[in-house]
Amino acid sequence: MIIVMQQNASSECIDAVIQEIDRMGFKSHPIFGVERTVVGVIGDKTRDTLEHFEQFEGVERVLPILQPYKFAGREVQQEETIIEVGNVRIGGARLCIIAGPCSVESESQIMSIALAVKESGADMLRGGAFKPRTSPYSFKGLREEGLRLLAAAREATGLPVVTEVMDARHVEAVYEYADMLQVGARNMQNFTLLEELGKIDKPVFLKRGPSATIEDLLMAAEYIIAEGNRKILLCERGLRTFETATRNTFDVSAIPVLQRLSHLPVFADPSHGGGHWWLVDPLSRAAVAAGADGLMVEVHDNPKTALSDGPQSLTPKNFTKLVENLKSVAAAVGRSM
Amino acid sequence: MIIVMQQNASSECIDAVIQEIDRMGFKSHPIFGVERTVVGVIGDKTRDTLEHFEQFEGVERVLPILQPYKFAGREVQQEETIIEVGNVRIGGARLCIIAGPCSVESESQIMSIALAVKESGADMLRGGAFKPRTSPYSFKGLREEGLRLLAAAREATGLPVVTEVMDARHVEAVYEYADMLQVGARNMQNFTLLEELGKIDKPVFLKRGPSATIEDLLMAAEYIIAEGNRKILLCERGLRTFETATRNTFDVSAIPVLQRLSHLPVFADPSHGGGHWWLVDPLSRAAVAAGADGLMVEVHDNPKTALSDGPQSLTPKNFTKLVENLKSVAAAVGRSM
Amino acid sequence: MIIVMQQNASSECIDAVIQEIDRMGFKSHPIFGVERTVVGVIGDKTRDTLEHFEQFEGVERVLPILQPYKFAGREVQQEETIIEVGNVRIGGARLCIIAGPCSVESESQIMSIALAVKESGADMLRGGAFKPRTSPYSFKGLREEGLRLLAAAREATGLPVVTEVMDARHVEAVYEYADMLQVGARNMQNFTLLEELGKIDKPVFLKRGPSATIEDLLMAAEYIIAEGNRKILLCERGLRTFETATRNTFDVSAIPVLQRLSHLPVFADPSHGGGHWWLVDPLSRAAVAAGADGLMVEVHDNPKTALSDGPQSLTPKNFTKLVENLKSVAAAVGRSM
Amino acid sequence: MIIVMQQNASSECIDAVIQEIDRMGFKSHPIFGVERTVVGVIGDKTRDTLEHFEQFEGVERVLPILQPYKFAGREVQQEETIIEVGNVRIGGARLCIIAGPCSVESESQIMSIALAVKESGADMLRGGAFKPRTSPYSFKGLREEGLRLLAAAREATGLPVVTEVMDARHVEAVYEYADMLQVGARNMQNFTLLEELGKIDKPVFLKRGPSATIEDLLMAAEYIIAEGNRKILLCERGLRTFETATRNTFDVSAIPVLQRLSHLPVFADPSHGGGHWWLVDPLSRAAVAAGADGLMVEVHDNPKTALSDGPQSLTPKNFTKLVENLKSVAAAVGRSM
Repeated sequence: MIIVMQQNASSECIDAVIQEIDRMGFKSHPIFGVERTVVGVIGDKTRDTLEHFEQFEGVERVLPILQPYKFAGREVQQEETIIEVGNVRIGGARLCIIAGPCSVESESQIMSIALAVKESGADMLRGGAFKPRTSPYSFKGLREEGLRLLAAAREATGLPVVTEVMDARHVEAVYEYADMLQVGARNMQNFTLLEELGKIDKPVFLKRGPSATIEDLLMAAEYIIAEGNRKILLCERGLRTFETATRNTFDVSAIPVLQRLSHLPVFADPSHGGGHWWLVDPLSRAAVAAGADGLMVEVHDNPKTALSDGPQSLTPKNFTKLVENLKSVAAAVGRSM
Repeated sequence: MIIVMQQNASSECIDAVIQEIDRMGFKSHPIFGVERTVVGVIGDKTRDTLEHFEQFEGVERVLPILQPYKFAGREVQQEETIIEVGNVRIGGARLCIIAGPCSVESESQIMSIALAVKESGADMLRGGAFKPRTSPYSFKGLREEGLRLLAAAREATGLPVVTEVMDARHVEAVYEYADMLQVGARNMQNFTLLEELGKIDKPVFLKRGPSATIEDLLMAAEYIIAEGNRKILLCERGLRTFETATRNTFDVSAIPVLQRLSHLPVFADPSHGGGHWWLVDPLSRAAVAAGADGLMVEVHDNPKTALSDGPQSLTPKNFTKLVENLKSVAAAVGRSM
Repeated sequence: MIIVMQQNASSECIDAVIQEIDRMGFKSHPIFGVERTVVGVIGDKTRDTLEHFEQFEGVERVLPILQPYKFAGREVQQEETIIEVGNVRIGGARLCIIAGPCSVESESQIMSIALAVKESGADMLRGGAFKPRTSPYSFKGLREEGLRLLAAAREATGLPVVTEVMDARHVEAVYEYADMLQVGARNMQNFTLLEELGKIDKPVFLKRGPSATIEDLLMAAEYIIAEGNRKILLCERGLRTFETATRNTFDVSAIPVLQRLSHLPVFADPSHGGGHWWLVDPLSRAAVAAGADGLMVEVHDNPKTALSDGPQSLTPKNFTKLVENLKSVAAAVGRSM
Repeated sequence: MIIVMQQNASSECIDAVIQEIDRMGFKSHPIFGVERTVVGVIGDKTRDTLEHFEQFEGVERVLPILQPYKFAGREVQQEETIIEVGNVRIGGARLCIIAGPCSVESESQIMSIALAVKESGADMLRGGAFKPRTSPYSFKGLREEGLRLLAAAREATGLPVVTEVMDARHVEAVYEYADMLQVGARNMQNFTLLEELGKIDKPVFLKRGPSATIEDLLMAAEYIIAEGNRKILLCERGLRTFETATRNTFDVSAIPVLQRLSHLPVFADPSHGGGHWWLVDPLSRAAVAAGADGLMVEVHDNPKTALSDGPQSLTPKNFTKLVENLKSVAAAVGRSM
């Protein structure tokens, strides 16, 4: 931590800061510059004292030096985290494709889509049972019935399933049926939910919130790890910006930046990232080329009648084409599919 | 709903859209322009069919006409909603000042601050018992003990208390002790929590999320109203933008815009809005001048030792000055204090 | 400048950084922490070497300590800058109101509006002669004829005039007719234009760009000052964000933040800030309450027929009301009008 | 254009709108819905009347139907625009790589880099002679000397050169030496500069501003085309958002979106897009995979001593690796290099 004093800070102010650093059991290290004095603080590993020093008279600002996350970062663990879900191995050389409908709508719908995406080469099945919706008047998912249908689709196809959990009260039920539990973008900072997910032994698919920084996302992962669960997949799915041509602004840079900072696998969601089915193909290619460990893609057998996210869903036929198109891109960056 | 066809849309495409509108039981109303055909849809009050039509061949985009919220808007209720919390009347001519610490830290702390803010003219007491924190390693609040201390502070001062509820599982406990339940910015779209709050009969203080549009905020209110609770206060507390000189970008325009669109009272949180104690005074004055119905201000008796949000907290002495400064501004816009 | 080394930086890397600091003639000041080494650099007053050190092996990042602007900041000049335009004194206790149409459209239009705003209490007249327009097919202003009409309106009313200059080639012509030259938001970083304005002796009204930070705005002012012209007024007029209910997100916090960092007068433009005429009144009140030194307001005698910015323009009648409403707010914060 | 009336708009208000539409020579087409009346306007191809109608009593908002650009869009020209610069053909199957230093610094520097990038496979040479810098105290380029050095490097290598023009006054000089003229991100809405570039017969490399929407970028291209120059290349180089881990947020979606809306070639600038040299490789791969027609990459023979943008510049050695890495990605999406 570096404490930057104001230009005109008196020596009394500087002394008071130094005494406080010593009183707290840290080591102070002042540097007397030409225009400003800065005081280094050695020994404090949290950011909680940052706010404390910001309030001392004569202090201009306080700069953190250490990253606020520990276990999610590369400093504690350098080798990549590999996560196994059923017989799918995530984070290694093989690209992982998760596909399925936004919402589970009926048995025939999820079965039909599950078989189709399996056939086309998907590694896992997605499908929403509990749906967060902006409007209280929209379809909110089949809930536990949806979970049962997902489990049935797993039986039929052998594909492990991932589904969203919106509320700490549902963790138990979702845990019972799903192979991996998803935290949606709007819940990325639902801290009590993250804590519950830290207590289970199944992997968590953690989506970046639309206004979350990369550091925020890693801190959300840290919440889960801090409770004991280290099986976390990070997923970029687009930021909220001023641009309106796309539903969100897909931050493709987040993929290499996250991989540099963290050992956790990094996915991309090209469906929410763009918000239009015709963007899924170029964004998927871009994400894979940038180094993503996997993709989560929305596929619906009849997007026009989908109860949610139809415009950004691929038909099974277009999903088949997508997988074909991706193979050469994946190979170009050293990934198998 | 207005369906805009692509410039080169064939008459077959246009016919297919019209037939679908009719099939769904709505009335279609095509307008054949020079460069484009648009088709008006009469009778659909939701936005769910919007995505349906976006996927028809030849459709460029679909424009909603009706607002997605009903009960939160002025169209259903034109007169202002007045909310009573204890003997405090919110939404009328009198400005409502809510003050207190970010977190309840101890009995002596909350008592001392409660008495001080009461003395200076606060109408209600705030204090966090369950605290959402970006880092899992930060202080997360005294939880139920905090709730009990808040209730004790109410006994001692007569000030009604408001405190945050982060999780649907805590609604019952918070309901028992608090006079008003707060939804924090990060939980504004925690839809299952909103639903639970829709089932209670105490007012809800709903903070705008840092990347929520004004429409999103009104939809969050709609979630609560849809379950039956119409006692909602909206609160602007700053957006996440590229500007780093302030913790958030306080959107003062949201106050008059929300008041134009909705009948619900509108508050401002100048503490989170700016993130620096020295900004609380100008932002409070701005919010009151723009027409806010009330303010929520963080006050701590010793900001340096605060376990959270110290840098943006006022001392009781500065809070007293703030209230004094606000009186003439409030009077200038026809408000009493 | 503080150079933060990576956690695993070798002692060779640290030595290389220290040697380079010494070689450049600065003093190095290493702090060996528990998890990281940081190296303070004393004696460098620019930010140009920052990028140099970012590229050394083992360097994680480089933190600037000094502000990048000098003359625009409070460190070089603590007392407020007072600017005189004709007999108007800006930056002191008296609030300055600049009003007029977006574009000068005709002699009768500018005369009529000038007389009306003078009558209602405006201190200066605004009017666009050279108009930056998003579309090449929109009205781009009367250009030099517009300048002449503005000068005629000054003759008729005694109000000093301010008008925008978009291009370094027009500085001479605008200088000839105007009392103050405006830099529009889109030209805030048109550096060659800023340099030309630094060479004249008339005040410059510098609008903040929609994606400019407060630091960027002060650096734009620094460009002008660096060439010799210290008569600069800063103007907040709204940021580009994800919110679409308003044309821009008016950053009211920028007013007190700029006043804390700089000695230059700070204005607000509530017309562009909100983009709707009905927002001009609440945003003006908010800006004055937050401490603005003045306002720039668009007024048109017939907004419906305005060739630009009609929706955000006040009628002369509403402008008169605005001035009346502002008087008590100004008085509440110790300003006269 | 669709005029949406307020819910409670009187029939007088609706009639007044209809009469005005007729008076202006357009055709009105009202649709009387259950909750609202909307009025279609047929025959108006501009957006200028939009603001006019927004101000009528009883009008809630006005929705544009037609796109504001004509010549930049696909509706007027469906086939791709191919641009030839020297013997380089841009916009076809072959990917175009532009490389070179941020700034031209000396003859030996530009010669050395030009030869190196030519050797590695670059198609064109970039280099800044006139440099827009945030600080007035930074290096601003060698100006005309820089132009002469670029021309000399072209002679030596045969690579066509592109360089930025910041000011309409410099167009003539830059035109004399450069094969393609670049408009920098900060000047994307310098409309008088765009007009001058519309009058020349050399191609213009138009960078998207950091807060410009895709529509804004196409309108900037429209400015140039409206004056007669149709040789325009569009370039995505990152948006200003709240994320600070990267210098800008590179909007990879803009590539396919621009290609859908426009016939102009679309480039990406991975150097400014990320701001770190280690991001150039993944962002380049992502851009090519998403369908970019070309890349502009900063290369410096000694990034540590670069007078600008060192941290985001590749060494010639890393540039060679980049080109190698890109070949298979380009091939995977059907592009040659």
